[in-house]
Amino acid sequence: MLKFDEELFLNLVEKEGLGFREQIENIVDGISQRGYSNIFLIGAGGTIAMMYPYEYILKSNSTIDVHAEIAAEFMVMNNKHFSKDSVCIFTSVSGTTKETVAAAEYCKERGATTIALVAEPNTPLTQAVDYCITTGSEKHSFDTFFMLLYMIVFRFMYNNNEFPQYKQFTEEVALLPRAILDAVKAFDKKAEEFAVKHKETDYHMMVGSGNLWGNTYSYAMCILEEMQWIHAKSIHAAEFFHGTLELVVEDTSVILLKGEDETRPLMDRVERFAEKVTKELTVIDTKDFDMPGISEEFRKHFAVSINWSVLSRISVHLERERNHSLDLRRYYRQMEY
Amino acid sequence: MLKFDEELFLNLVEKEGLGFREQIENIVDGISQRGYSNIFLIGAGGTIAMMYPYEYILKSNSTIDVHAEIAAEFMVMNNKHFSKDSVCIFTSVSGTTKETVAAAEYCKERGATTIALVAEPNTPLTQAVDYCITTGSEKHSFDTFFMLLYMIVFRFMYNNNEFPQYKQFTEEVALLPRAILDAVKAFDKKAEEFAVKHKETDYHMMVGSGNLWGNTYSYAMCILEEMQWIHAKSIHAAEFFHGTLELVVEDTSVILLKGEDETRPLMDRVERFAEKVTKELTVIDTKDFDMPGISEEFRKHFAVSINWSVLSRISVHLERERNHSLDLRRYYRQMEY
Repeated sequence: MLKFDEELFLNLVEKEGLGFREQIENIVDGISQRGYSNIFLIGAGGTIAMMYPYEYILKSNSTIDVHAEIAAEFMVMNNKHFSKDSVCIFTSVSGTTKETVAAAEYCKERGATTIALVAEPNTPLTQAVDYCITTGSEKHSFDTFFMLLYMIVFRFMYNNNEFPQYKQFTEEVALLPRAILDAVKAFDKKAEEFAVKHKETDYHMMVGSGNLWGNTYSYAMCILEEMQWIHAKSIHAAEFFHGTLELVVEDTSVILLKGEDETRPLMDRVERFAEKVTKELTVIDTKDFDMPGISEEFRKHFAVSINWSVLSRISVHLERERNHSLDLRRYYRQMEY
Repeated sequence: MLKFDEELFLNLVEKEGLGFREQIENIVDGISQRGYSNIFLIGAGGTIAMMYPYEYILKSNSTIDVHAEIAAEFMVMNNKHFSKDSVCIFTSVSGTTKETVAAAEYCKERGATTIALVAEPNTPLTQAVDYCITTGSEKHSFDTFFMLLYMIVFRFMYNNNEFPQYKQFTEEVALLPRAILDAVKAFDKKAEEFAVKHKETDYHMMVGSGNLWGNTYSYAMCILEEMQWIHAKSIHAAEFFHGTLELVVEDTSVILLKGEDETRPLMDRVERFAEKVTKELTVIDTKDFDMPGISEEFRKHFAVSINWSVLSRISVHLERERNHSLDLRRYYRQMEY
């Protein structure tokens, strides 16, 4: 596959990624034993979007008080729920994202417990937090981060006596890297076809819901807009009918990210509408992927990883078809503002 | 002013709107005395967006547990924080918004306390809730709803011993209708100039933060997209630098909604960037409006109302300049989906 080294993927995500389980359990168990008041999931851009699924999962499965906050806003807004008893979780590929590092320092200075997932070793974020998992490579770092966040979040739920299936869940987490690889292979041709067909398309609507809302928001903003300079509007499926629908005409590209959680009927509704109105409908549905060994019960959670990994296939094909490097930036880290 | 009857405005928002204070205090005091676990602010489209400022205000001023949830998603997601001890607040101009009515019924059936603000009398939403404030007119209903939501939210905070300045605050709420009227008059010419200049513009970026994020989201989706069929992307100021900025070029229309809360520095940063890159920058800043009698301390809260009311001037001028009725819909309530 284009820009995809299977062996490297399995080495990073399966072999090394799964190896962090014991370390994560030790960290989370220690925190749970000491006690905490709530969990803050903090990030910026792609890394706050990455937290939204876990905020959704916690809200719909646990009474643990959870807050997903944009780092720069969190720093100034004086959130009254944040205290020294909060657990603050961050991710950053480079470990240098300004707002994330600043927020981690802010939280630590105030006595909160801080955890970070970082790809690169010895970064400013590594230094700033109490507990850092260093995954070791920028390659496939989002796939690894998602997997580690499952381990963290469900361990907190398990310790809170809200997730007795934890053991089975971790056994299935171990199968996730292979499930991702299968999905990526199964989707690659469709990703290429999408990229060929849409290489000139200058606007996409992306619709998602539930635990896939974060991916929807992130793919529109961080990939299509930032990395491909294509206009993209992310709309929550439950909100689609309160405005954005009016812009859909026969040739409007509408991309639906369908998952398997409780909000799927909201996506079905958008699909029924879009089918009637536009000829340029793309449905990316995690139900189309096998996920061998993963139970019906947990497929909905792992849909976040599966969805993100197959979207990433679109990115590399768009890059090639449009001859527009995913690394090209006009402004970000190119100028001061 | 175009499509603005000052006398009617003052009659509806000042005379009648302020008259609900005692009723609201009685409702909120009764709930506070009985006790509650948290507050759910629930809506769809414009009415969930209308709740975001109050979620922000509560988070940054109070330890009351608050959740702003999209009605249709709330119904299916099984939010574990919701219970019979929750207070659920809804608004709807028509009182017939499907998802909102369904969510209110869902909450009431489960024993939660339900409050609605509705413009029209005897609506399905009126019937569905424990407490309903019927404002009586669709005209200026958002201005009235915002004002009543200040009364509700700050009364809850006062009862929670977190807002000793309540008496002064209500005295200032009483000055808000006149402040809105002044702002609207002061801004009308600029609104017209914007509409003339941008009548052919087919895409706007709207940036906001803090308690103005809801207006930013809402104006892009419910006014520009839904009512004018103009593509619009709303971006939080703290997120702007993580993607959308890359699309800004010399002729990109960027609209900044500046308020006066703690997040203003995030807007300043976007402004510094946009000034360098685009010639089509529009800054709508509540600091430009007098708000006579309103204290420096509370201006930031009232900025939500002021901002929304001046944006509404742009709407009517766009309607005229573009010869596109604000009431025209292709699909909403025109077809089944």
